[in-house]
Amino acid sequence: MISGANVSDPVFILVRPQLAENVGTAARAMMNCCIGEMRLVDPDEDHLCDRALAASSGAEEILQNAKVFQTLKEAVEDLQKVYATTGRSRDMIKPVLTGQGMAKEIEADRRTGIKCGVLFGPERTGLENDDLVYADAIVNIPLNPKHCSLNLAQAVLLAGYEIFRLSDTTADKYLSMPNTEPANKAETEHLFDHLEQELENAGYFKSPEKRPRMMRNLRNIFMRAELTSQDVRTLHGVIADLARR
Amino acid sequence: MISGANVSDPVFILVRPQLAENVGTAARAMMNCCIGEMRLVDPDEDHLCDRALAASSGAEEILQNAKVFQTLKEAVEDLQKVYATTGRSRDMIKPVLTGQGMAKEIEADRRTGIKCGVLFGPERTGLENDDLVYADAIVNIPLNPKHCSLNLAQAVLLAGYEIFRLSDTTADKYLSMPNTEPANKAETEHLFDHLEQELENAGYFKSPEKRPRMMRNLRNIFMRAELTSQDVRTLHGVIADLARR
Repeated sequence: MISGANVSDPVFILVRPQLAENVGTAARAMMNCCIGEMRLVDPDEDHLCDRALAASSGAEEILQNAKVFQTLKEAVEDLQKVYATTGRSRDMIKPVLTGQGMAKEIEADRRTGIKCGVLFGPERTGLENDDLVYADAIVNIPLNPKHCSLNLAQAVLLAGYEIFRLSDTTADKYLSMPNTEPANKAETEHLFDHLEQELENAGYFKSPEKRPRMMRNLRNIFMRAELTSQDVRTLHGVIADLARR
Repeated sequence: MISGANVSDPVFILVRPQLAENVGTAARAMMNCCIGEMRLVDPDEDHLCDRALAASSGAEEILQNAKVFQTLKEAVEDLQKVYATTGRSRDMIKPVLTGQGMAKEIEADRRTGIKCGVLFGPERTGLENDDLVYADAIVNIPLNPKHCSLNLAQAVLLAGYEIFRLSDTTADKYLSMPNTEPANKAETEHLFDHLEQELENAGYFKSPEKRPRMMRNLRNIFMRAELTSQDVRTLHGVIADLARR
């Protein structure tokens, strides 16, 4: 379990994975998304072999803590809810979730203390109908309908990403401002005064009646730039040097 | 350009990619997300070599239509907006977007007819500061802060997925019902009547005052199952056969 994980975090269960490298890259994708607990059902290769460890690039901890089960039935025994990822539609009456739909349910599971798991099928064939009998819901991540096949690690990444994303609180957009902060209105007004003064000295305002509009246009350019205090100082220097010339 | 693409769809620009396989898997991820136009800046290897084509598993069209440029400056000339993906924070005053923030801006770009592109850096180093000068905004996809490194195709997949996801209209959750539909209330009431009658015949209701609660509990079990017409027919058969015994 990676640091910060708790018992009601979802477990990711790789069912009959074929290649050790893919188990390793799946562990890496899980680590990217803070999903700490991996289970393996009847894997074809040793998940602790060199190829798997190398492919995990730093997520060895997840491989080392992974539990191996002989059957899917044993792997899900302690779980209260099971989601099964599949790219194919099935001839079954079962709830189908998008990635986001799954993430929302898992978040609700977490809040109510329900222990849940997400199943991923073998590389070549995906999950079989006999695997899906253990699933409460199918997860079908919407993608290009004409080209929706994903490799194992990519499926793990998208499912994990949806779960991570739902609890992430990063602002959709912000201004990166190392060692500075947004200029206040006094600073920007002072800059515009400086600019206007130097433009007047330079004879930029040919017609007095157009002057207000010309200044509005210039103000709009700089206001769209969301100037920081550092930017304002930079621009004072630029104006002063251009004017001196 | 893949079918359904139009001129204001974003282009994905791989800057100095090192391995042809990674260009191929990036093309596959683009195809998954309906991103049709790839550009390459000074790639180390031929993007049409066998290794690239094999890795694209079905997205050869994107590789064949990809344009190669000697410099990033040339590759972005016709674009009106450029987003740059990077996992590292930078000592620059620049807008920073999450994957979702980028997708929202790109959707707004699309609606206003603005042609935009998304930059992805070389595998080993990512984009350099000299590349970022062409970017209007930096895209930093939130992931486990202690383990956020992604390979090229995974970065392309997450960026493409956010863009695809925003325009996708699949319901978060629905019931897959091949050849049937949700039972109406007449069908479910008839089922509950059948069940209650056979339970009465079987002597299930020991105490008359508890009978209403027992039936409510049974109704709740079956109502949570969101029965279809097919399910109702199945359950009538189960009740009849159990009762006959």
